[in-house]
Amino acid sequence: MDDKLIYLDNAATSFPKPREVMDRMVDTYARLGVSPGRGSYDLSMEAADLVFQTRRKVARFFGAPDPERVIFAANATDALNLAILGLVGPGDHVVATRLEHNSVLRPLFHLAKQCGIEYDLVAFDGSGHVDPEAVARAIRPDTRLVICTHASNVLGTVQPVPDIARVCAGRGVPLLIDTAQSAGHVRIDMAKWNVSAVAFTGHKALLGPSGIGGLVLSSRLEVNSTRFGGTGIDSRSLLHTQAFPYRLEAGTLNLLGIFGLLAGLDYLEKEGLEHVQQREMAMTRRLYEGLSAIPRVALHSPKPTDNDVPVLTCTVKGVTSEDAGAILDGDYGIAVRTGLHCAPLVHADLGTDASGAIRFSMGRFNTGEDIDRALEAMEAISSGR
Amino acid sequence: MDDKLIYLDNAATSFPKPREVMDRMVDTYARLGVSPGRGSYDLSMEAADLVFQTRRKVARFFGAPDPERVIFAANATDALNLAILGLVGPGDHVVATRLEHNSVLRPLFHLAKQCGIEYDLVAFDGSGHVDPEAVARAIRPDTRLVICTHASNVLGTVQPVPDIARVCAGRGVPLLIDTAQSAGHVRIDMAKWNVSAVAFTGHKALLGPSGIGGLVLSSRLEVNSTRFGGTGIDSRSLLHTQAFPYRLEAGTLNLLGIFGLLAGLDYLEKEGLEHVQQREMAMTRRLYEGLSAIPRVALHSPKPTDNDVPVLTCTVKGVTSEDAGAILDGDYGIAVRTGLHCAPLVHADLGTDASGAIRFSMGRFNTGEDIDRALEAMEAISSGR
Repeated sequence: MDDKLIYLDNAATSFPKPREVMDRMVDTYARLGVSPGRGSYDLSMEAADLVFQTRRKVARFFGAPDPERVIFAANATDALNLAILGLVGPGDHVVATRLEHNSVLRPLFHLAKQCGIEYDLVAFDGSGHVDPEAVARAIRPDTRLVICTHASNVLGTVQPVPDIARVCAGRGVPLLIDTAQSAGHVRIDMAKWNVSAVAFTGHKALLGPSGIGGLVLSSRLEVNSTRFGGTGIDSRSLLHTQAFPYRLEAGTLNLLGIFGLLAGLDYLEKEGLEHVQQREMAMTRRLYEGLSAIPRVALHSPKPTDNDVPVLTCTVKGVTSEDAGAILDGDYGIAVRTGLHCAPLVHADLGTDASGAIRFSMGRFNTGEDIDRALEAMEAISSGR
Repeated sequence: MDDKLIYLDNAATSFPKPREVMDRMVDTYARLGVSPGRGSYDLSMEAADLVFQTRRKVARFFGAPDPERVIFAANATDALNLAILGLVGPGDHVVATRLEHNSVLRPLFHLAKQCGIEYDLVAFDGSGHVDPEAVARAIRPDTRLVICTHASNVLGTVQPVPDIARVCAGRGVPLLIDTAQSAGHVRIDMAKWNVSAVAFTGHKALLGPSGIGGLVLSSRLEVNSTRFGGTGIDSRSLLHTQAFPYRLEAGTLNLLGIFGLLAGLDYLEKEGLEHVQQREMAMTRRLYEGLSAIPRVALHSPKPTDNDVPVLTCTVKGVTSEDAGAILDGDYGIAVRTGLHCAPLVHADLGTDASGAIRFSMGRFNTGEDIDRALEAMEAISSGR
């Protein structure tokens, strides 16, 4: 069955990875997998150069001016922790949204409990969007940070980040966006939009491996170190290096992951992000229309537009999402993700928190046939066949 | 020159990696690189099983009883941060040693500055060892943690951890050891030695890739979460999952790295850790003897025993370590690490902190010829040829 698996869980991680991305990653690591910049030999400098080239490519990809403010981390959650814990402290207020993933909700909950920060979560409307005006109303004089997911990992809706950023800039509050679900699907332009910080992961739509992600900062944002160790420079000082990017990095870099991320970004550039996105959104619309026509299926994602991400969430009347997931896998060889998708408040607001929902997420290697097969399966499940 | 590079910087990262480790890592990731345990499909369960098998193998490797207390992190520094920041807080005292890497010194320095913890660093003797009795004398009633590097990354000396652990156990203080330089070289037995926590990295003598390491905890040690996010379970709760290993993990695991670590451990098991270690220490002794015979070379590592790790540090009278490193690379194609090796206090105590020292570190793929070539080069450098 594995060889026929229809993989529709790309929002969890893209699978499979492009063969050429994996090959290039491993070949580069075989050639340059030494300690970048810390050894006193050419190969070490060459590795350091390629790391810096990757920072430059990431900066360009996100429309950020300064490659030295591209910080590597293990994944988007890790990057969000670096940003939130490094920016927010006692006496601060934070605004986020009810669309957030636990990677934002849990750090905030912890800070509230540990040092009494306060936070407000802005609601989303029936179309799955956060209203920038509602963000404006939530900002207080003591608001230190606004956090917004760029694309909902449950609904697939892309948030009006440029408008939210305008509100934040007007109030002098930095905006951190979580691009775990959007990077690689929709264009992001930090400088043009006036976004202060972007958390990203490499293993989703950027088509790289797991274990690598990062935080991209605007030139003005100061973030405190919350992890400490060797940075390869300034070893005499017991104070962790304060220059960026080292300020937020410690220990040996994930060179294999960095080379994989670079290969993923190059692949995406070659294929054309817009081209991949159009294909994926065409499949998403086809799935949406098909599911809409099945009587007992309730779609929770709004009708996808070209600018959304290829994620659709639904439930089937009378069938728990867990059961539906098991039937999709066992009887049809279709992989989806069921449950709460680590975004409990979205499900609470949708009324799906009791037994979760079924999430389909399309990727680079899906085809129209995969969608047809998923629709057949959902029809059968919904009619109890 | 690259094809002839003599790589003697294995203490920074082992290079090259065994071809079969890289191949198996990538093949496994190509087959199972989905979201482990979070999807509602068999492949996801299969990936989760392999992750758990890796935890089990790591636990066995370190002589730890409980695979659920094997926490994956990005590298040893990351694991040390998880342990130190999760264990130590206001009012606590910590004992560590002057052999520590900045991965221990910098978190302690930060905590002292941020919340007033106190710490004492035990000196090492002329043979490069810490006296367990000195550790005993440094422990106070408010000592919350003792930290000791297992093998010095500058001297190559292995510390008497079983004796230090006995002291700590007698005083009821947990012992955390940093095995960045020892894991893969010398056997470690947490249960037998009564060690509470082990930080390790995968990319050095475990022959795995960069980006993966971890923290192994004894059954009794409680460590607080210091990073927060999705764990794939218990998604409804805004409190980060408290069950181990999730308590100290957040976000998508580095599955590629975990598969690489597993392949590295299997490779080491097949080759025989003791067998590899004997070869490496034979080369280290040969280098030691050769360097001892060169008049202007000062060896800072003591004479290596079979139970040390393959690291030797020296200086050349009249030649800065930076210059020596550049000549070794440029004229002889030999890669070493010069400078302070992120262990500033060791160099301060050796009197080599002004211009650092030259570190040779041997690995799985070095040969006796590499050592001969290094000795020739050092003779030439020391005689100004």
